[in-house]
Amino acid sequence: MAARMKKLFNDVKSIVDETLEGIVAAYNGEVRRIPETGVLFKSAVPEDKVAVLIGGGSGHEPLFPGFIGENLADGAACGNIFAAPSPDTILNATKAVNGGKGVLFVYGNYSGDNMNFDIASELAQAEGIDTRTVRVRDDIATDNEEDRRGIAGDLFVIKIAGAASISGYDDLESVYEITARARDNTKSLGVGVAPGTFPETGKPTFELPDDEIEIGMGLHGEPGVERQKMTSANSLADSMVDRLLKASSLNSGDEVCVLINDLGSTTVSELLIVNRRVSSLLKNQGIAIHDVQIGRYCTTQEMAGFSITLFKLDEELKRLYDVPASSLAFNKGGN
Amino acid sequence: MAARMKKLFNDVKSIVDETLEGIVAAYNGEVRRIPETGVLFKSAVPEDKVAVLIGGGSGHEPLFPGFIGENLADGAACGNIFAAPSPDTILNATKAVNGGKGVLFVYGNYSGDNMNFDIASELAQAEGIDTRTVRVRDDIATDNEEDRRGIAGDLFVIKIAGAASISGYDDLESVYEITARARDNTKSLGVGVAPGTFPETGKPTFELPDDEIEIGMGLHGEPGVERQKMTSANSLADSMVDRLLKASSLNSGDEVCVLINDLGSTTVSELLIVNRRVSSLLKNQGIAIHDVQIGRYCTTQEMAGFSITLFKLDEELKRLYDVPASSLAFNKGGN
Repeated sequence: MAARMKKLFNDVKSIVDETLEGIVAAYNGEVRRIPETGVLFKSAVPEDKVAVLIGGGSGHEPLFPGFIGENLADGAACGNIFAAPSPDTILNATKAVNGGKGVLFVYGNYSGDNMNFDIASELAQAEGIDTRTVRVRDDIATDNEEDRRGIAGDLFVIKIAGAASISGYDDLESVYEITARARDNTKSLGVGVAPGTFPETGKPTFELPDDEIEIGMGLHGEPGVERQKMTSANSLADSMVDRLLKASSLNSGDEVCVLINDLGSTTVSELLIVNRRVSSLLKNQGIAIHDVQIGRYCTTQEMAGFSITLFKLDEELKRLYDVPASSLAFNKGGN
Repeated sequence: MAARMKKLFNDVKSIVDETLEGIVAAYNGEVRRIPETGVLFKSAVPEDKVAVLIGGGSGHEPLFPGFIGENLADGAACGNIFAAPSPDTILNATKAVNGGKGVLFVYGNYSGDNMNFDIASELAQAEGIDTRTVRVRDDIATDNEEDRRGIAGDLFVIKIAGAASISGYDDLESVYEITARARDNTKSLGVGVAPGTFPETGKPTFELPDDEIEIGMGLHGEPGVERQKMTSANSLADSMVDRLLKASSLNSGDEVCVLINDLGSTTVSELLIVNRRVSSLLKNQGIAIHDVQIGRYCTTQEMAGFSITLFKLDEELKRLYDVPASSLAFNKGGN
């Protein structure tokens, strides 16, 4: 199937710049941008709390800048399309959000992001700003945990970091620790159905025959764990949840939040039909569902496919998850 | 461009049934369904308030059932794919949500919906349940106001109806009046870029050459106001906002909420770039922006394209808009 070339941009060179301006406009005064950079941050950065800085490549909107908000991230460092933000961008974002108690970096585990956030961390330390880092690695498509990529599970990890930073965790180490636990409790698996397009070239992000799907395919078309013939929603959900349960430490009696994330152009109906099965499978295992999120949080342009994320709760994580939050892309009232 | 045939369903005959089950699962106990029907409603229907019932054809998810929630709709009557719910479904939904103070129907102005909701209204009156009706007709693609279709502007009208019904408007007539004013203040215009597919047949919902778009195209491929060559995001936004301002009674000094609604597979980046321009155009006209919503609220499967909605506020509507709300598809904290 041909990818869709027909996109409503102005100049391909200005896609990221205008996307970031569109985000600032959507926040309607609540978020500012350092002009002509990938640095977005709250107009009123809270003082006297640990700051939460997120970031990564553009092209995955609403990730990351759509998660700047109340009880969420304080700012985002945004790179070019599918490219890590530069150390300078990250450093400037770090300075913009620092309220004097240090800055927690939360981002996906990709080599470019790792390198540039690490450099920025050293530069920030040299300027007297403490930082700690949580690399999200929820994608179980890779066996070795340290090598796993960060995908839609970012949402839950950012949610916990943001909530912790405003509710009694008043030093960097304690916000880091609870955020790292959220990260360790978050497991995802995706499926690629049809490619998106690289917006700057119009080329598809991967090639896949019309009658095949690929379980575990990454956000940038990275190889998954199994390519198979097109199948039913139920049989696909069965296989994905089975893999997720094997990769998790979930047992009967445990409680989870579920995220069904659309990678771009999956219909809401498909996501709901998958959710129906996921919900039933979890209940059959005696796993309780605390909350379900269904939507478009981490995308690869108009890619078709989705991911399933299971976030295992404990009392402390549940309390933090239930803290209300508001942003462009994620809003949650009190429970 | 070929429409995408590769969808993750089980049996095409069970798409609506399983979608509704997926919604109930996502609501995690907060919403119930009358088994094997299109009737979804709050598990705890509030007593002693005017009830708000919404509904229409399926296939436009998350519209309508995704807007059942706190300070939003009390229930939804859902039809088959792109088909109005039956009078029986609407009647049963009416009985399910009625808390003794009558039921306000809010739905899109389509002949099938109009006929079936009107029949259900008569049946309900015969059983002693008062009803009133607000038909959403935000789509300015049609000249005659009475004939206009309801599209994404449903969201704002439902928001106001839900907020009014819990905040001091304690008889059906007063909830009707403020909701009708919200309807009259809501104007939208869409653009079709590439078709979705009828999920039951795999056929595209309309035909459009690869280098053309159609302003004003309806949710079901209904003819729009102008078919034109593919253009830039800015030039398209200019033309759409110009038409919206001409069809509205908006003047410098007025205040609006803006909704950029994705019809299915438009990238978030495109929506944001359009929002950037819309925001700038409104400010240039001296029109203040109170809030911006960007996302997927009213779709036609994986159709590419979007709509712009302007909702003109007054003091009363603004106060009601700012009431917090929560549901599967729309969440809003306090302002």
